[in-house]
Amino acid sequence: MYICEEDIQKELDKRKPNNSRYSTNRSEEDRVVILSGVFEGKTTGTPISLMVKNKDHISKDYDNIKDVYRPSHADFTYDIKYGFRDYRGGGRASGRETIGRVCAGAIAKKILKSLGIEILAYTSSVGNIKLKNVDLSYIDKNPLKIPCEEATKQSIMLLDSLIKENNSIGGTAYCEITGLKPGIGEPVFEKLDAMLSKAIMSIGATKGVEFGLGFLSSQKNATDYNDNFYMENDEILKTTNNSGGILGGISDGSKITMNIAFKPTPSISVPQDTINNNLENTNITIKGRHDPFIVPRAIPIIECMVAITLLDYILINMTKKIDCVKYAYFNF
Amino acid sequence: MYICEEDIQKELDKRKPNNSRYSTNRSEEDRVVILSGVFEGKTTGTPISLMVKNKDHISKDYDNIKDVYRPSHADFTYDIKYGFRDYRGGGRASGRETIGRVCAGAIAKKILKSLGIEILAYTSSVGNIKLKNVDLSYIDKNPLKIPCEEATKQSIMLLDSLIKENNSIGGTAYCEITGLKPGIGEPVFEKLDAMLSKAIMSIGATKGVEFGLGFLSSQKNATDYNDNFYMENDEILKTTNNSGGILGGISDGSKITMNIAFKPTPSISVPQDTINNNLENTNITIKGRHDPFIVPRAIPIIECMVAITLLDYILINMTKKIDCVKYAYFNF
Amino acid sequence: MYICEEDIQKELDKRKPNNSRYSTNRSEEDRVVILSGVFEGKTTGTPISLMVKNKDHISKDYDNIKDVYRPSHADFTYDIKYGFRDYRGGGRASGRETIGRVCAGAIAKKILKSLGIEILAYTSSVGNIKLKNVDLSYIDKNPLKIPCEEATKQSIMLLDSLIKENNSIGGTAYCEITGLKPGIGEPVFEKLDAMLSKAIMSIGATKGVEFGLGFLSSQKNATDYNDNFYMENDEILKTTNNSGGILGGISDGSKITMNIAFKPTPSISVPQDTINNNLENTNITIKGRHDPFIVPRAIPIIECMVAITLLDYILINMTKKIDCVKYAYFNF
Amino acid sequence: MYICEEDIQKELDKRKPNNSRYSTNRSEEDRVVILSGVFEGKTTGTPISLMVKNKDHISKDYDNIKDVYRPSHADFTYDIKYGFRDYRGGGRASGRETIGRVCAGAIAKKILKSLGIEILAYTSSVGNIKLKNVDLSYIDKNPLKIPCEEATKQSIMLLDSLIKENNSIGGTAYCEITGLKPGIGEPVFEKLDAMLSKAIMSIGATKGVEFGLGFLSSQKNATDYNDNFYMENDEILKTTNNSGGILGGISDGSKITMNIAFKPTPSISVPQDTINNNLENTNITIKGRHDPFIVPRAIPIIECMVAITLLDYILINMTKKIDCVKYAYFNF
Repeated sequence: MYICEEDIQKELDKRKPNNSRYSTNRSEEDRVVILSGVFEGKTTGTPISLMVKNKDHISKDYDNIKDVYRPSHADFTYDIKYGFRDYRGGGRASGRETIGRVCAGAIAKKILKSLGIEILAYTSSVGNIKLKNVDLSYIDKNPLKIPCEEATKQSIMLLDSLIKENNSIGGTAYCEITGLKPGIGEPVFEKLDAMLSKAIMSIGATKGVEFGLGFLSSQKNATDYNDNFYMENDEILKTTNNSGGILGGISDGSKITMNIAFKPTPSISVPQDTINNNLENTNITIKGRHDPFIVPRAIPIIECMVAITLLDYILINMTKKIDCVKYAYFNF
Repeated sequence: MYICEEDIQKELDKRKPNNSRYSTNRSEEDRVVILSGVFEGKTTGTPISLMVKNKDHISKDYDNIKDVYRPSHADFTYDIKYGFRDYRGGGRASGRETIGRVCAGAIAKKILKSLGIEILAYTSSVGNIKLKNVDLSYIDKNPLKIPCEEATKQSIMLLDSLIKENNSIGGTAYCEITGLKPGIGEPVFEKLDAMLSKAIMSIGATKGVEFGLGFLSSQKNATDYNDNFYMENDEILKTTNNSGGILGGISDGSKITMNIAFKPTPSISVPQDTINNNLENTNITIKGRHDPFIVPRAIPIIECMVAITLLDYILINMTKKIDCVKYAYFNF
Repeated sequence: MYICEEDIQKELDKRKPNNSRYSTNRSEEDRVVILSGVFEGKTTGTPISLMVKNKDHISKDYDNIKDVYRPSHADFTYDIKYGFRDYRGGGRASGRETIGRVCAGAIAKKILKSLGIEILAYTSSVGNIKLKNVDLSYIDKNPLKIPCEEATKQSIMLLDSLIKENNSIGGTAYCEITGLKPGIGEPVFEKLDAMLSKAIMSIGATKGVEFGLGFLSSQKNATDYNDNFYMENDEILKTTNNSGGILGGISDGSKITMNIAFKPTPSISVPQDTINNNLENTNITIKGRHDPFIVPRAIPIIECMVAITLLDYILINMTKKIDCVKYAYFNF
Repeated sequence: MYICEEDIQKELDKRKPNNSRYSTNRSEEDRVVILSGVFEGKTTGTPISLMVKNKDHISKDYDNIKDVYRPSHADFTYDIKYGFRDYRGGGRASGRETIGRVCAGAIAKKILKSLGIEILAYTSSVGNIKLKNVDLSYIDKNPLKIPCEEATKQSIMLLDSLIKENNSIGGTAYCEITGLKPGIGEPVFEKLDAMLSKAIMSIGATKGVEFGLGFLSSQKNATDYNDNFYMENDEILKTTNNSGGILGGISDGSKITMNIAFKPTPSISVPQDTINNNLENTNITIKGRHDPFIVPRAIPIIECMVAITLLDYILINMTKKIDCVKYAYFNF
């Protein structure tokens, strides 16, 4: 297939801090270079290796956190696991690691698009502020990736006050997959929703994931919850989509819908009690400016992790029928 | 290690319908037999193969669902994926497949127990009925596995009325891991919470999973949410456990806590609109008696899936330090 | 696809001792039963679980080898690895474990046959006795699976004398794959010949594997060795097939050819010096009758291991081109 | 563990053409740079990413092979598999890909050395020229890595005449593992010799691999072949090592010994008949100077592939006994 750096760069650019007050002001240029796997614009089958150089990273920025475990960060758990830690920027617990997810996701998204499949994520709440309506065209018109002008205005006021307090807040994201055929996913341990959950929950700061009605399902009767199938103009449809597009771990042809919970950014510039790596009580005030709200920066990561997972399943699904195996063997 | 059929049978017995009104009355004997891997009571390193014969299964029970797709079941998605389906009992989408999970989980739990690690799950809500208090000793005193007498009584009244209406209801489960050392889990894609999410979400009827404060985290400020470390009597402690015992995908030594959402059992004995495998509109009334509330039967499955996942991570963790590799090579 | 017990049984029957003087006289009935994965004669996508009961196994047969390590057997290595061993019949080091290989191989062979691919193996030498000519029709006319009447007669005389001496002898097998398209295999670490080597060398008693000219290649100049391509009647052909049908780990459309070396059966009924599990010097005379020549019994195992490996690669190959991915997604 | 670029560079340097007449004269500098995974000289647990830039590669060198399939090269098989090929330098079928194997192997070798395990490979024949004696100190004193002065002299004369004819020749390598404890390896499909075979056969130009007596085993009686155990000074010893140090797929504490066959370098500067990618008959004379004998350059690759495989098995072996799992959990 055809792939170029620009295909990947445009996804990486979505991930960058958007020069607003509401995200870190590190100047992350994040230019991707293709090192292998593409020749004359086409993939050769060789693994595609990509490089994004870290230009902004200056070691001294991190000196005050060298020996102290920041609360609700992974400093302590990495140190106790490995007995040793690269304290500069959080290592693999840093948001920097998501660059790789976005690069892979950009390629997956391009293939999915050619199959008619789209993935869309947006910020669905900031603290207690919920969406009043959903206007998808508004997502890219505001730095918070909220599809609602009113909720955005309220959120901006809230974040302005949190910035003054050096505090941060959690929120939720919504993600949907449209255009996916029924029949994609695997039974038992590798259910599509199980693997999407793994993919989503591997993103830093996530604390929960749900499909369709999600936790609200627990309050429903079957007579209200069950999605009824019906035929209309030779199309298989459902009266409702409470299940969120997956039945028994396999896509049913409806939209796949997810909600994801994010905790507040743990890095805040107020003094916090904690311990150091000599196991002594101490406190820390984390320097620098940090995102008061992490969800907008997680939006492209969610889309990319979903894309990667989905593409894997579409490839796995190729072997589901012996007729497809035969056709592929004789024709490709 | 020593393992016998009784070690596994006692977990399987927890999975059986408990002869109450609130679960299916199929007489599932479910006796496990060890076929390989154990000699003179000890494991030999050979894969342990176990057999549980399905005695109750009678094909004619399923004749009325042969051609019709039950709403919110996996009949349709299996059929469209594979082009063919064993309609007797739901195949791999049936709750019968959880027997394997419990057998493996029983062995995992035995090993974890020898490491001082315990896993406990219980029903934490039935529809809108929440726990009033938590009395762990009450879990096994009621058929619903609820740790609260008052909530149990309310739930029984609710379920009695649902049975009359041939309806069912959703609920939630809570699960906690106690006694786990800090440092267990892996970075980036294989975070402990990511893999536990996958394990939990692979159980039928689950619609969401969250850790620690979970979705509530999204409404918190960092100053309220962050868990502060402190030392007391040479022990590393945290003032709170909002993160649910995992930081950066690695256990922090606190309890690991999860909530899980379950949809209502989709099998209900009222007429429902749907389609058949000729893609025609039709309706179905599912015969037989079904669980009006699935959570109690999922409780042992949750514990077992958590146990299997956790043990895998403990094995993976053995290679984290080169000193451990050396010690193991020279001494074992 | 359609699969029945007979499809598997006919391969299992090839594996049985052939009631000749030249193989063990254990009465191994080895009836296979399909336990899952097949419904109304067709596979459902569910893992196919098969059971072959071990009827002949009587524990007392093995009492004399309980504490003593038989020379050139795996008794010692299993015991030192696991600290414990099921001494009855060799456990996983026993030839009994090849039943599973044959069951899986039978299914793989059936699929490969539908793709026009055939796998053939035969005994190509017994000690120093080589083939004089190759008459494939003779393979099943003699208990040694040798495609040459003269070599068979010589071998039978040799084996008769070895039986009298309670001795055994090594030999070689030849295996070829015909009808395979070019383009099957993977680059670098997973080359087709690399994985076939692994598959073959995982069979007990194998000591070497080679492709095409094999070790003889090491004595050749490039001008003699290189296989030249040419076109004839729109077909891509090679003047020679010294490479044995694989170039750069990928099939080139010619026959894939392999030679495999087998050591003599280590179980012999003469006294041998060895040690026991108290690490004391001792000796052992292995009771019972054993195969004086193992290769004929390995022939079906070779075919099956090659079939399993090849089918895996044909499935993997389905994703080699994005056009095939698209076709499969939209049409199956 | 401590690791620095020099640890890796010294293995890479062994892989370079040795400025003799007997290897290609491309000036491959091959400097390795550690990009991630090491901090303050120690590994952090993060994947170690390494970069070796390809400085010598000039595209025009390869223009004459753009459309023509070189005999006994992978040009044809890559093209037919992927429908497209990076013709510059052979892509993943090029010897350049072995850099990654050596980098990983260097780290594996360092760890194995700390466990007392050494891996040694050398050239054991050049065409028909065999070793007269084995003098390990001579390996690094000659460009052919032959441990025998006489065989080296004969080989040099042979290679000189082959260079004049623009021809090349095959050969064999020998590899041994010393200092490995018994008990390393896995049963059935993942036998240590099976996986070593895969590792070795994944190296370009290999055509066969054998263990211990290898193909010669096929000519032996059990009474001559079987290795007898005996105790001496509390040590477990064997009278012979015909099995090559592996029994039932698991190391027995003796030297592990392998022989490997290599075909002649297929790139020769004489005209050869072949076809092009329009499937027309044509011929090719491959320009430039090429190794008349590839084995010396394969020697470090063999050592590295064996090291990687062995280290994997040592890590896998850590979980063989529950007591080791417990010790590791509580102490590391």
